[in-house]
Amino acid sequence: MRRVVLTSILLISVASVRAQSDSAKADLTGKWFATMDFFGTRANFDFDLEQKGEALTGKFRGDPLEGTTDGHSFQFHAKDTQGGGEQVKGTIDGGTLRGEVEEADGGMPSKPYHYSFTAKLRPTKTTATPQLHEFAPTVFYRQFSPFNAPVLTVNPGDTIHTTTVDAGGIDFTGATRSMGGNPQTGPFYVRSAMPGDTLAVHITRLKLNRDWAQSDDVIVQRAMDGGLAVKMKDTGKTVIWHLDLEKNTASPAKAAEHLASYKVPLKPMLGCVATATGPATAPPGTGDSGYFGGNMDFNEIVEGATVYLPVSNAGALLYLGDGHALQGDGELNGNALETSMDVEFTVDVISGKRQPGPRVENATTIMAMGLGSLDDAFKQATSNMAAWLADTYKLTPSEVAQVLGTAAQYKVSEAADRNAGVVLKIDKATLATLQAAK
Amino acid sequence: MRRVVLTSILLISVASVRAQSDSAKADLTGKWFATMDFFGTRANFDFDLEQKGEALTGKFRGDPLEGTTDGHSFQFHAKDTQGGGEQVKGTIDGGTLRGEVEEADGGMPSKPYHYSFTAKLRPTKTTATPQLHEFAPTVFYRQFSPFNAPVLTVNPGDTIHTTTVDAGGIDFTGATRSMGGNPQTGPFYVRSAMPGDTLAVHITRLKLNRDWAQSDDVIVQRAMDGGLAVKMKDTGKTVIWHLDLEKNTASPAKAAEHLASYKVPLKPMLGCVATATGPATAPPGTGDSGYFGGNMDFNEIVEGATVYLPVSNAGALLYLGDGHALQGDGELNGNALETSMDVEFTVDVISGKRQPGPRVENATTIMAMGLGSLDDAFKQATSNMAAWLADTYKLTPSEVAQVLGTAAQYKVSEAADRNAGVVLKIDKATLATLQAAK
Amino acid sequence: MRRVVLTSILLISVASVRAQSDSAKADLTGKWFATMDFFGTRANFDFDLEQKGEALTGKFRGDPLEGTTDGHSFQFHAKDTQGGGEQVKGTIDGGTLRGEVEEADGGMPSKPYHYSFTAKLRPTKTTATPQLHEFAPTVFYRQFSPFNAPVLTVNPGDTIHTTTVDAGGIDFTGATRSMGGNPQTGPFYVRSAMPGDTLAVHITRLKLNRDWAQSDDVIVQRAMDGGLAVKMKDTGKTVIWHLDLEKNTASPAKAAEHLASYKVPLKPMLGCVATATGPATAPPGTGDSGYFGGNMDFNEIVEGATVYLPVSNAGALLYLGDGHALQGDGELNGNALETSMDVEFTVDVISGKRQPGPRVENATTIMAMGLGSLDDAFKQATSNMAAWLADTYKLTPSEVAQVLGTAAQYKVSEAADRNAGVVLKIDKATLATLQAAK
Amino acid sequence: MRRVVLTSILLISVASVRAQSDSAKADLTGKWFATMDFFGTRANFDFDLEQKGEALTGKFRGDPLEGTTDGHSFQFHAKDTQGGGEQVKGTIDGGTLRGEVEEADGGMPSKPYHYSFTAKLRPTKTTATPQLHEFAPTVFYRQFSPFNAPVLTVNPGDTIHTTTVDAGGIDFTGATRSMGGNPQTGPFYVRSAMPGDTLAVHITRLKLNRDWAQSDDVIVQRAMDGGLAVKMKDTGKTVIWHLDLEKNTASPAKAAEHLASYKVPLKPMLGCVATATGPATAPPGTGDSGYFGGNMDFNEIVEGATVYLPVSNAGALLYLGDGHALQGDGELNGNALETSMDVEFTVDVISGKRQPGPRVENATTIMAMGLGSLDDAFKQATSNMAAWLADTYKLTPSEVAQVLGTAAQYKVSEAADRNAGVVLKIDKATLATLQAAK
Repeated sequence: MRRVVLTSILLISVASVRAQSDSAKADLTGKWFATMDFFGTRANFDFDLEQKGEALTGKFRGDPLEGTTDGHSFQFHAKDTQGGGEQVKGTIDGGTLRGEVEEADGGMPSKPYHYSFTAKLRPTKTTATPQLHEFAPTVFYRQFSPFNAPVLTVNPGDTIHTTTVDAGGIDFTGATRSMGGNPQTGPFYVRSAMPGDTLAVHITRLKLNRDWAQSDDVIVQRAMDGGLAVKMKDTGKTVIWHLDLEKNTASPAKAAEHLASYKVPLKPMLGCVATATGPATAPPGTGDSGYFGGNMDFNEIVEGATVYLPVSNAGALLYLGDGHALQGDGELNGNALETSMDVEFTVDVISGKRQPGPRVENATTIMAMGLGSLDDAFKQATSNMAAWLADTYKLTPSEVAQVLGTAAQYKVSEAADRNAGVVLKIDKATLATLQAAK
Repeated sequence: MRRVVLTSILLISVASVRAQSDSAKADLTGKWFATMDFFGTRANFDFDLEQKGEALTGKFRGDPLEGTTDGHSFQFHAKDTQGGGEQVKGTIDGGTLRGEVEEADGGMPSKPYHYSFTAKLRPTKTTATPQLHEFAPTVFYRQFSPFNAPVLTVNPGDTIHTTTVDAGGIDFTGATRSMGGNPQTGPFYVRSAMPGDTLAVHITRLKLNRDWAQSDDVIVQRAMDGGLAVKMKDTGKTVIWHLDLEKNTASPAKAAEHLASYKVPLKPMLGCVATATGPATAPPGTGDSGYFGGNMDFNEIVEGATVYLPVSNAGALLYLGDGHALQGDGELNGNALETSMDVEFTVDVISGKRQPGPRVENATTIMAMGLGSLDDAFKQATSNMAAWLADTYKLTPSEVAQVLGTAAQYKVSEAADRNAGVVLKIDKATLATLQAAK
Repeated sequence: MRRVVLTSILLISVASVRAQSDSAKADLTGKWFATMDFFGTRANFDFDLEQKGEALTGKFRGDPLEGTTDGHSFQFHAKDTQGGGEQVKGTIDGGTLRGEVEEADGGMPSKPYHYSFTAKLRPTKTTATPQLHEFAPTVFYRQFSPFNAPVLTVNPGDTIHTTTVDAGGIDFTGATRSMGGNPQTGPFYVRSAMPGDTLAVHITRLKLNRDWAQSDDVIVQRAMDGGLAVKMKDTGKTVIWHLDLEKNTASPAKAAEHLASYKVPLKPMLGCVATATGPATAPPGTGDSGYFGGNMDFNEIVEGATVYLPVSNAGALLYLGDGHALQGDGELNGNALETSMDVEFTVDVISGKRQPGPRVENATTIMAMGLGSLDDAFKQATSNMAAWLADTYKLTPSEVAQVLGTAAQYKVSEAADRNAGVVLKIDKATLATLQAAK
Repeated sequence: MRRVVLTSILLISVASVRAQSDSAKADLTGKWFATMDFFGTRANFDFDLEQKGEALTGKFRGDPLEGTTDGHSFQFHAKDTQGGGEQVKGTIDGGTLRGEVEEADGGMPSKPYHYSFTAKLRPTKTTATPQLHEFAPTVFYRQFSPFNAPVLTVNPGDTIHTTTVDAGGIDFTGATRSMGGNPQTGPFYVRSAMPGDTLAVHITRLKLNRDWAQSDDVIVQRAMDGGLAVKMKDTGKTVIWHLDLEKNTASPAKAAEHLASYKVPLKPMLGCVATATGPATAPPGTGDSGYFGGNMDFNEIVEGATVYLPVSNAGALLYLGDGHALQGDGELNGNALETSMDVEFTVDVISGKRQPGPRVENATTIMAMGLGSLDDAFKQATSNMAAWLADTYKLTPSEVAQVLGTAAQYKVSEAADRNAGVVLKIDKATLATLQAAK
C-alpha cells in the first residue's frame, strides 16, 4: 500500500499565539506544537486550546475537545464523528505540556491505542538585529534528515557564509571530506521556523573557490531514445574541466580534437537546497528531490535567487550542497561541472504560507517546479504555479488560465535523477500589470 | 501491427546527376526518381543506373542490377540476397522511363507481384533570379496532404507574400473562409525539391492584420493533475483578446476583475509550417504534427526564424497557417491568441540533408524539436540535436555529450495537441567556439 | 492550436422519432440528422423540431428556435445567449429538408457566415430477419475513412462472412492485393446506425486460412531502455512462421539454434476493427487507433469477443483487417504473426449509448481500453471502465472506486504503434454480485 | 548531480573460495569481502588475493595489485591505468584482515585520501539440516535499512513461520504495534548470503489471521484523467471490509446501496518483500520500491510464489509485511484490503546470480518486474525479462525478440506508489519448448 503515515499532522493551520507568563497560573489558550512518540516513531502535530476559567475547549487532531485544567494538570476529551476520538490527560510543566493520549479510531474494528507527547506553544517569529555567521563545515551529511544535529542556529534575517564540498565530497583544497553523493553542508536551525511555514533562502553570494570541476561524457538514460543509446554505447569516461575564474569560462582540461577551443560561460549554481523532511518518513538521500527541494539541479538557483521550501520540522533544518560551476538544462551528463563553492545566504521565515512544491524567484521572474516523470512534473509545475497565482493575486480559475495561456514559460530543469524536473516561469513584468489592476 | 509501408522508398541517397539531352540516344546514367502505382496506392522511390554502351548496372530498391538498353527500351534484373529481387522492363519516352516490375520477396512464401512506374532523372537545383510572389489564397486545406493541387509554383530562393486565416477559418476582414481546425494556405510547390532534401522556410515578415484574436480559458488536460482539474472544472468560455497593434500588446476585450489592466506583449508566430507527407501514408490533419512539422505551435517560429523540414514529395508542397498573436509555452488554453496573419517567407532547398525531426534556427540559437509524450519528446529532441552536432560539427559521441551537458537549453513548446513538443536549444555563441577549433 | 472543429456536432442526444408519411402535409416534428457543406468540408449535426399548426419550436445546434412552416418551406431563428444564433430557411422535399443558414457567433467580432444543409429524420432501428452475407473483398482501404464507398449494406443483426488480407496486403493464396500497412476489408454500411450510437461487432468465427505468417525479430522502441537497445542493435530480419493448423501451434519456419523446437499456441485475432471517423477530421491511417477503435492490436479480439465502437457516420462504416495468428501482449516485434484470415461477424446497433473509448466483451469479462502513452492509456482505461460501471450498474463514485480497487485487472495490449494500449478487465463473475443487489 | 556513490563496490564477481585454517601461517589466497569506513560512511567491497610464498598478486577495486605478506601483516600496491591507484597495508588477525588504504584517483586534480577496512573471506554457502523457526515479532521497522539489527539468523534452506501487522501497524488482535506506513517484520539474517548473490524467498504459507481489513474509496492520482478526477472529487472515506474466512470472500462491512451483495474472492498476498539496501545509500521507506523489491504491491506474491531479490549486505536482511487480503491490479484505492497475516517462507541463496530487477516465479509462470512511471516500468520489465531469457536459456538477441513477441504477457502490478509497476510474465509451458531444444 501507499505510505500510510499520520500525514495529517503536518496539515497545520497557523494562528496567532497569545503571549504567556510562566509565573502565576498558566493560561493554556493558544496553538500548541506537539512532539509525539508513536510506538518508537517520532511525529509532530498541532492542537488548539482555549481556556476560560478552568474550562478547556479547542480542537485536537481534527476533533473538537472539551475538558478542564487546574493550572497544574489538564484533561480533555476530543470526539470524532465516527464515535471515536481521544482521551487526553497530562501535566503542565512551565511552558511545556506533557500528555498521555488514548485514541480510538471511530468506525474501525481495531483496539484503542496509547501514545505520549510533549507540547509547547508555537513560537512567534523571532525578531533580532540580523547577523552574519561565518561557518566552516566539518561534517557533511548524505540524507536530508531531521535526525542530524544542527550545526548552527540562526535567526530569521540572519546571513550565513560557508562553503560546500563537491558532489564527490572533495573540498576547495582538493581534499576528500566525505563519501560522494552530494554531501551537504548543514543542517542549519532557523529559530521560530515551524511546520506549516515556508523557509526563504536568499543566495547573496555564490562563488567558485577552486579552478577545476569534474564531469563525464555520458548522456543520461532519460534523454536517450534507442538510436542515441546505440551511438553513445562506448562513452563513459571522466572529464576534468578547467575553470578560468578570470575569464569566467570553463573548458575541458584535456580537450578532445573538436573541443580544443570549446568554452562555456561559468554560471555557478547549487544543485541541492533542502529542508529536512518530516520525522515520520524515511529521510531521502541527497540524490533525491521532492516537496522539500533537495537535489533539484536547477541552473537558475544562482547568486541572487531566492528558494522557497516548506518547513517540516522545528527550525526548518536547512541543507545546501552539490555546487556546479555551470550546468546545461537537464544535467545530461548525470554530473554537471561538479565543484566546491563559497556560499552566502540569508534565511527568512514566512509564517503559514503553504506551497505544493519548490519555488524560486529572482529579480525578473517567479518559478514553480514540478518533479517526477517529465509528463508528471509538467502537470505539477502547472499546478504549483496556478496555486501561486490564485494565492498571491487572488485570480479566479478562469483568470489563472488566461495568464498561464499567455505568459507561461516552461523549461526542463533536471533529467539525471530519479525525479526529472520541469519549471514554469512567469515574468514579473507581466505580473506587474496584474498588480496595477488591484 | 505497425504501419508496414514501403518506407524504404524514402531512404534515398542523393548523388549528382549527369546532364542529358533528349535528342540523340539517351544515356540512362543517373539517379532516377520514380512514381509507382502499387495496387492503387501511389508511392515514390529512387534508383540508380549506369550505362556503358548497351550495358546497364546500378541499384534498384536496394538490390544490385544488371541489364541492357537499346535506346528505346530497357530491361534489367535486380537480385536481393535472399533469392528474390525484381525483373524490370520498360520504354524510354524522352526523359521519362516507363517500367513494369515483377518483384519477388526472397525468403517469403508469398507470390511475386507486379507494379508499374514512371521515372525521371532527379532534377538539379534550380537557379534563377529570386522573385517575389504576391499570393492571395482562395482555398484552405485541412490536411497536410500530397494530393492537394499546388496553389503556386516557385523556385528555391523565391519569396512569397501571402496571408493566413486563423485557426477557426476567419480571415483578416472577419469573414469565415473555411471550417476551423487550422486551415492552411498552400501548398506551394518548390521546384527541384525532392524526397530526401530539406526545405528551409525563412520567415522574413510576420505581421498581424486585424485587431482581435480568439482564445478560451481552459487548461489542457496534459497540464493538469487531478487537483487542478477539480479547480478548473467550471471553466470553458471563449475569450476575445484585443490586439493593440500600436502599443504591441494584447489584453482581454472584456477583462474579468483581476485582469482589467492585464497586458502581454504581442509576439506573432505561425502555429503550423509543414511539408506534405509522403503519398503512401494517410495525410495528417492540420491539428497534428510530426517529422513533417505541422501544427508545432512553437512560439519561436516568428519573424526572422528559419524552419527546416524534410521533403517527402517532388516540390515539397509547403503549407502554412494557424497564426497566433502570441502564445505562452505549451499553448495551455488549447487555443493561443488565434488570429489571421500577413506572412512573407523565402524558401530554399538543401539537397540531400537529412534530419530526424523538425529544426528551427534564428540569429542566436539552433533548435531541435521532439514530438510525442513529454518524456518521449525529450528523448527525441536530444537525439535530433545530437545528430545535428555530429553532422554539422563532426563531433564524436563523447564530444556531443560534453557540449550537450554544458550548453543544452530545453523548453516545452506545445502541450495542447496529440503530440506534445520539447525543444532543445543551443546558443550559436557557444557553438562558435567549436567552429574556431576547426 | 488544437484541432478546433465543430465537434459539438457529434454531441447528439438521441430521442424517439415520430413516424411520418410523405404524402399529405408533412409534420416536421422529430429529430433531424443534417449533412452540411461548410466551405467545402462535410459535417453532420442533429437538430430537433416540434411543429404545432404552422408554428415551429425546438433546438438548432444548441440554441432554442422559433419559426414557421407552410408545409412546403420553413424558416426559423435560433438565438444563443451571447446575442448570436442562426437564421435558417429552407424547403421541404418529401422527407428531406434543404436549408440555408446564416450564423452569427455571439460575442465574436467576426462576420456572420453561411452554409447549406440537407436533413432527414433520424431513422428508427431497422428490424428484419437476420441474414448471412458472403462477401469476397476486391478492394482494400488504408484509411478508416468515411469517404470510401461502402462495399456492402446490411441490417443490424445480420452476419457477414468474409476474408482479410494480412498487414502487408497478401491474401490467403499468397497473392499481393494491396500496399501494406494493414489494408482493410470494408467499409460495411449498417442500416440505421447513426452518429451517437454504438456499433457492436460480435466475432462469430475467426479462422486461419493459410499456413504461414510473417513477423520479424526486432523489439519496438517503446519497450527498450538504453541497455536493451544496445543489445538489440544488430537485429532486424524478417521471420517466417509456420502455422500448424492441425496441432494449433506456430513455430519459426527456419528456427535459429535455440528455437528449433519452439512452439506457441495459435490464437487468431484481428489487429484492426474500426468505424470510420467523422467527416470533418482527417481520416486516420490504418496503423492508427483511437476512439474509433482501429489498429488496437489487442490479442483478446478473438472468436467469441464483441467489440463496441462509437458510430460517427450514418451507417457506421465498419472496417476490419490485420489478422494475427497469435500475438504476445504489446506486439513487441512491431509485427505479430501477420496472416490472412477467414472472418464471420454479426453487427448490432445500440441506440444512443456513448462510451469514452473502445470496449470489448467476452463470455467471462468486460474490457475497457485506453490509448496513448502507457501512462495516459492507463488513465483512459480507468476512466472508460469507471464510466461503464457508473452507466450500467448505476454505481456512485465511491462504489466505483471500491469495485475497481478489488476487481481491476490491467494488461498492456499494444506497444508497437503511435498509441500504446492499456486494457482494464473485470470478471463478470464479480460483477454478478452487483447485479444480484439490484 | 546524480547520486555519485561508490556503487562499483557492489559489482562483485563471485569466485570459489579456498578453505583456510586459522592455525598455521595464513594463506591469503581467496576472495575477500571488506567493510570500509569512508569518512563516516560504511560501504562494502570485494577484492581478490593470490599468495605464492610471500608474494601477493590479485585485484583491488578493479586495479591489479602486487605486494607481500609475512603471515602477520601485508602490504600491496594496486595501480589504475590513469596513474592513480591504492597503497594498502594492514595486519592479519585470525581470519580478518585490517587494512589502511591511501587512494589516488588517477587523472583527477584532487588529493589522495585515506580509509580503513576490515575484510573476511567470502563465506561458502552454508549447508545444514533445514530448520523451521517460529518467530513472534516485537519490533516493526519502517525502512528497508541495513542498520536495523537482525531479529533472527537462519541458514539457507530454513523456513520461518511468523506474522505481519497491517499497513497501519495493527496486528491480528486489533492492537496497534507501530506507526503506519507498512511496518515490517524482520530483518532476517540469512547466513552466507553476500552482496552479489540472489535471495530466493519461497512463500509456503500465507493465511489471513483476522476477519477484517481496512481500505478506502479513493482512486489514486496516477489512474485518473481530469474528467475522472472531477467525478471522484468528493470521495475519501475509510472502508472496512469483512473477510469471510470460511467462504473465502471479502465484502464491505457496511455496504453502500449497490454493493450490498458485493463479494470478491480472497487472495492473500504480501505487499512488501525486500532485502535491505546497501549501506552507502539512504535506506528507503517501506512505501518505496526498487531493485531491492520493497513495497511492490503485486497481487501474485501469494502462497506458492517465489520472490527473487538481490543481496546488498552480508546476510541479505530480509523484510516482509503489508499483507493484503486481496488487491485489484494497480492498488487503485491507494490501500488494498489491508490486514495482518500469518506467513511461512523458506529462504535460499543463489550464489553470484544477478538480475536487473525483482523477479517472481510460481508453478506456471516466470515474472519480471519493472518500476518507475508506467512507460519506464514497461521498458524495465522487458529488459529484465530479456536478460532472464538470455541468461537462463542462452538465447541470442534475435531469439529473445521472437520469444517475447509471441509469449509476452504484461500486467500493471502497482499504480499507487511513487513507482508504478509493470510485470512481464511468460508461461513455463511455452518456455518448456525451449528447454526441449537444448
